[in-house]
Amino acid sequence: MSAYAEHVSVRTTKKEQAQDVTDRVRAVVRKSKVRTGLCTVAVLHTTAGVYVNENADPDVLTDVLSALRRAVPDDAGYRHAEGNAPAHIRTVLTGASTTVPVADGDLALGTWQGIFLAEFDGPRERRMLVTVIGD
Amino acid sequence: MSAYAEHVSVRTTKKEQAQDVTDRVRAVVRKSKVRTGLCTVAVLHTTAGVYVNENADPDVLTDVLSALRRAVPDDAGYRHAEGNAPAHIRTVLTGASTTVPVADGDLALGTWQGIFLAEFDGPRERRMLVTVIGD
Amino acid sequence: MSAYAEHVSVRTTKKEQAQDVTDRVRAVVRKSKVRTGLCTVAVLHTTAGVYVNENADPDVLTDVLSALRRAVPDDAGYRHAEGNAPAHIRTVLTGASTTVPVADGDLALGTWQGIFLAEFDGPRERRMLVTVIGD
Repeated sequence: MSAYAEHVSVRTTKKEQAQDVTDRVRAVVRKSKVRTGLCTVAVLHTTAGVYVNENADPDVLTDVLSALRRAVPDDAGYRHAEGNAPAHIRTVLTGASTTVPVADGDLALGTWQGIFLAEFDGPRERRMLVTVIGD
Repeated sequence: MSAYAEHVSVRTTKKEQAQDVTDRVRAVVRKSKVRTGLCTVAVLHTTAGVYVNENADPDVLTDVLSALRRAVPDDAGYRHAEGNAPAHIRTVLTGASTTVPVADGDLALGTWQGIFLAEFDGPRERRMLVTVIGD
Repeated sequence: MSAYAEHVSVRTTKKEQAQDVTDRVRAVVRKSKVRTGLCTVAVLHTTAGVYVNENADPDVLTDVLSALRRAVPDDAGYRHAEGNAPAHIRTVLTGASTTVPVADGDLALGTWQGIFLAEFDGPRERRMLVTVIGD
């Protein structure tokens, strides 16, 4: 059993963006030498989240972001003075971390699954901590 | 310390369904022989998620599914051409994996908690990977 | 490698409340002596969740709770007879557990991140199980 962790940085380029970070996370899993275990991807910010979903059709990414804007409107009388309250709330809904199993020394994802950083208040430099634990 | 993983398959029977998979996950935890640790249940699909909530009143399951339909409407001008964009988005909101503690060699759930596969684009055969890690 | 777990109890004081539990969780991490690994905070109830987000401006907490009320209205013809269906649904959206990395023997949180118990049907005594696993 071992535990291995590494920071991964991503520069987003838009206000809102779902950026595929699967390959970056996979590289950490391989360096960890863990064969069976868990990989947690944690975003170290409060206006960007992380989720696992479809990696094939970019339209799905657009639909996810627009659905979150509909469920959490840009302007709804928020009290937070910085103007980015919706970004905080959308981050709560997607989650600040996601845990993906590790099997056979690789991320155990389904055929169509990828790991996405969800930027809600970009563009910014975003830091994630990828932790891999297992046998 | 050890890590143990096993696939669990579930056949859903409806378009949308919250299916209790607690006993299936518990069986894997017991086989793992882990006494104290973590159990991650990961769904290997992009239109079905997993969550932990009330296992007693089936009306709660219905309410969860209908609330997700209200928050993420079936028809809202989605761009994804396959017609199942809302299923992808609802999966992002529930999450593709959930982590439940393991204590005394069993799932550490509260009295009313169960683990549910959330089907949003069924009926289908759905695969989960249950990974247990700990002492 | 080791696994360590401890229950943490919190008494909420309002119907809806986001209560910072970071220090309570950190205390368990320190007792665990784990330097690198994972910490899962699991709420053992079905009408309270847990999430990681902004710890500086209390207005963000208010905005998160009111946005969840908007996305999941208090009254929407729910079938669950106990009257707390929205609390169950909001718990599904925030999640019943969250996993935070452990680095250098401490919670690896970003500058503005805290861990919050999200009470949706209080006031009540709420129990969490904090599990720490790693090297």
